[in-house]
Amino acid sequence: MSQQAQQMLDRHRETLDQAVEAITTRGYWSPYPESIKKYPEEAVKGAPARFEALLRQPFSLKTPAVAGQVGAEVSPYGFELGVTYDQPEQGALITAMQAAMPAWRDAGAEARVGVCLEILARLNALSPDIAQAVTHTSGQAPMMAFQAGGPHAQDRGLEAVAYAWQAMSRVPAAAKWVKPQGKHDPLVLDKRYHIVPRGIALVVACSTFPTWNTYPGLFASLVTGNPVILKPHPGAILPVAMTARVAQEVLEEAGFDPCLVSLVPDSAEAPVTKALALNPAVKLIDFTGSNAFGEWLECNATQARVFTEKAGINTVIIDSVEQIKPVAQNLAFGLSLYSGQMCTTTQAIYVPKEGIQTAEGPLSFDEVAGALAKAVEKFLSDNDRACAVLGAIQAPATAQRIEACRELGEVLLDSETREHAQFPKARVHTPLLLKVDASQRDAFSEERFGPISFVIATDSTAHSIELAREVIGEKGAITLGAYTTDDAVADQFERLAMDVAAPLSLNLDGGIFVNQSAAFSDFHATGGNPAANASLCDQAFVTPRFVVVQSRRHAPVEA
Amino acid sequence: MSQQAQQMLDRHRETLDQAVEAITTRGYWSPYPESIKKYPEEAVKGAPARFEALLRQPFSLKTPAVAGQVGAEVSPYGFELGVTYDQPEQGALITAMQAAMPAWRDAGAEARVGVCLEILARLNALSPDIAQAVTHTSGQAPMMAFQAGGPHAQDRGLEAVAYAWQAMSRVPAAAKWVKPQGKHDPLVLDKRYHIVPRGIALVVACSTFPTWNTYPGLFASLVTGNPVILKPHPGAILPVAMTARVAQEVLEEAGFDPCLVSLVPDSAEAPVTKALALNPAVKLIDFTGSNAFGEWLECNATQARVFTEKAGINTVIIDSVEQIKPVAQNLAFGLSLYSGQMCTTTQAIYVPKEGIQTAEGPLSFDEVAGALAKAVEKFLSDNDRACAVLGAIQAPATAQRIEACRELGEVLLDSETREHAQFPKARVHTPLLLKVDASQRDAFSEERFGPISFVIATDSTAHSIELAREVIGEKGAITLGAYTTDDAVADQFERLAMDVAAPLSLNLDGGIFVNQSAAFSDFHATGGNPAANASLCDQAFVTPRFVVVQSRRHAPVEA
Repeated sequence: MSQQAQQMLDRHRETLDQAVEAITTRGYWSPYPESIKKYPEEAVKGAPARFEALLRQPFSLKTPAVAGQVGAEVSPYGFELGVTYDQPEQGALITAMQAAMPAWRDAGAEARVGVCLEILARLNALSPDIAQAVTHTSGQAPMMAFQAGGPHAQDRGLEAVAYAWQAMSRVPAAAKWVKPQGKHDPLVLDKRYHIVPRGIALVVACSTFPTWNTYPGLFASLVTGNPVILKPHPGAILPVAMTARVAQEVLEEAGFDPCLVSLVPDSAEAPVTKALALNPAVKLIDFTGSNAFGEWLECNATQARVFTEKAGINTVIIDSVEQIKPVAQNLAFGLSLYSGQMCTTTQAIYVPKEGIQTAEGPLSFDEVAGALAKAVEKFLSDNDRACAVLGAIQAPATAQRIEACRELGEVLLDSETREHAQFPKARVHTPLLLKVDASQRDAFSEERFGPISFVIATDSTAHSIELAREVIGEKGAITLGAYTTDDAVADQFERLAMDVAAPLSLNLDGGIFVNQSAAFSDFHATGGNPAANASLCDQAFVTPRFVVVQSRRHAPVEA
Repeated sequence: MSQQAQQMLDRHRETLDQAVEAITTRGYWSPYPESIKKYPEEAVKGAPARFEALLRQPFSLKTPAVAGQVGAEVSPYGFELGVTYDQPEQGALITAMQAAMPAWRDAGAEARVGVCLEILARLNALSPDIAQAVTHTSGQAPMMAFQAGGPHAQDRGLEAVAYAWQAMSRVPAAAKWVKPQGKHDPLVLDKRYHIVPRGIALVVACSTFPTWNTYPGLFASLVTGNPVILKPHPGAILPVAMTARVAQEVLEEAGFDPCLVSLVPDSAEAPVTKALALNPAVKLIDFTGSNAFGEWLECNATQARVFTEKAGINTVIIDSVEQIKPVAQNLAFGLSLYSGQMCTTTQAIYVPKEGIQTAEGPLSFDEVAGALAKAVEKFLSDNDRACAVLGAIQAPATAQRIEACRELGEVLLDSETREHAQFPKARVHTPLLLKVDASQRDAFSEERFGPISFVIATDSTAHSIELAREVIGEKGAITLGAYTTDDAVADQFERLAMDVAAPLSLNLDGGIFVNQSAAFSDFHATGGNPAANASLCDQAFVTPRFVVVQSRRHAPVEA
């Protein structure tokens, strides 16, 4: 191992050990503080100016051959970034990355882990800057951009490294195989086992969580020896480019070819993802985005292992509650956070049309729906707080979808545009909440990306469960929330979760929300329903990224 | 857990623990004796009569709905088996298997491991009978049919159980998540984690190794909670049917639906595999067989995880040797064993046209090729020994291929038909060994299944390595052998093995052969080249067969 890689590993060995322990015990843990107060004041205060200094000019990365320039990012807060990026020539890039692979492979798992942990540590230090880039590409509000774009994304990257390290370190470097032969001398073979990467890895990033959804695939593939092409969404290149730069710097310092992590940006007008995904050299693909494209990859990029995070019909079922107010407040926060643009945001809320029981007496369907609408309205009544929670709508199409969906049901709470104090052109919209009957399945059983949710009147909780089973079975879900005060019904929810392979959040009415997922403890998505074919992270997310190549020979006869 | 499943687990706990230890340390280990002498005399002696008693009548298994009868197996030793099997109605079968799945899932990993280990133990006791069925379907000679069809197949099944148990037991059943909140009380969640199967698993068996290649997929899928459809090759149903019967008996005794392991036999005239493979309920497919069908599955059954063992151009490179004789003897045995019908048999043997160095002086190319031809000839000169090693040719097409390939090069050793003492109609053929030039790439770089091999004259060992790199890169290989007395060249072979992801056997000249692969120590295939997309067994073989579904709720406030 190079001295540099060894030093990197030594520096982060304790973090690695703790991460492996965390994925095993799955309690709360993170090495990357989520409170911005824990970061150096200068780093935090200087971030906006450093972001400003990146605008309206080229952002340079190392690449073997440049084919052209792209870059037309527009902040959802209302201004053009004006950053341009080199687009590498694909053939030359893949040739260079393949040439770089053997040295990265032969460095061994420990060296690769050291390098990856150093990249993560430097990304962590860069969190305030990355938060700026995430804010002005995804539209996330600053605090969320900091947490989800910085430490939480780094957590997910580290989690992938920990899983991969656990898997790789379970393969011994060597073994002596001694087979008894009765009265004769035993047969003795010396065996060696090598971790061998699959080939070029492609990570297709999304516009809403350009780092959080990218780091697991990036680090899982890289640490197992595969060179990684980062293909950012044309609307959110900068956070991925900043990540690539950090990775390239660390790789180079450790004595490796920086092109082992390469950025291939494109434009909406001339997308390159399909061509990259079908390149025979590409053996691993991580994708976050639409169902249509995810399914296209699953069905067409058959030369590669494809890991997809798509979308589904995230569901909440309300059977009964102790008190409606904290439940409504909890759901209201979840619906408002990042204007419903999380892959975990609830879309379908099933409530029996006869109403529900509470410890404070029965509530009619309309009372439940009204409590929810009122909780959202109240939570967003302070405009500054609203803007700090909602952030901005990433894509104009999402804002248009709010308009288009208004006709799908009876409006319980209408979506409003809001004016952002600092950025008057910001695309800020509050949630749209609609009431529909269970029979209006076309309305609620299609994904409506954005701040659009449905309160659905069902015949009973049994009916709610059956509907959820059917809709999630067909369309998938990344989250499932449920409320009941009845242990028998709770068991039914637990069983539903297993049947449709969706993670269950039961009776959340405090400071935890169905759309939040904690690295090292929560498995994000399961990979077992149509919303995603992979989980962040589990063993299945890392083990297909390498193979074991052995050699064997007769052992020297001992003197 | 049911009392029966618990007893099964208790009975085999030590075997399980040892198997997990074995896959970690990868020394020699097996709980199933490969020597037939270790089995009860009655079991061994009575096997032929028990086999005879199965012939010319229906073989019954449990199934929810019968659509018809199939069965037209013909022993490669020259007689019709006359066994018929129920062919289940697919729709009814899948509905019944899906209905049986939740109870199998909810029983938990320990119960499933107990049941699987009991199935394996009973299969082990049945080894003499299974050997009869393997002999008269695959054509393997009796000793090989016993070892490869019995204990070695059971080893591979147990190995899959051990890997799956290791993976499942790494997921905790529950966790308490405690997130500090500064001066406030911490957020505390109780979490539960469930192992959830993917769905119906399909195992498509082959005619040459109907148990060895079937047990890994069968046990990997079953132990992780998936109901398994066994689809045998129409020419080798009986060994798979006997396996299914044992599995059904044990499942039923343990209180589970026996249809969790179901046989779906078909005929060559009316194959059902494609329809089964594309059934949306089928989520896992294990396949052993032709490249064409394996690639069809990989490209078309995109709703499922597909694990394939296909074929490639198994390769030996000769650079230099201490003594040619033991090397030629070693290779001769490998070429003769089961008449080259192993997926691990060498097809391409690269030798520099200028000859090689040995400790006994230089040898010309023709001397090397001649030594090899002579070693095969001598080894097979005793007809009884020849028949006991060669076995019979499974398919008439393979025998025809020997004829067709004779034209592809200069005949170094011609294939002969042999008469079997006990079975005069047996299809027994000795190996065909051809000499070709490296330029005759079309000859040696297509798979020629059967006892057909090529000694290829290359410009140099560097040229041999380059050719092997290209051919294996394009066509894959399950085995790679190499001979050199030069450590620097050995390093080049080790690097070649990593580059093409083929396991290397270096300088084998004793009682170990390139086409043998030992469970718990040797990774059979790597999954990293076109000959196979999976390895038997590694972590990647088991982890994609289940997902983790979690639930979380606020922890009760402690008094």
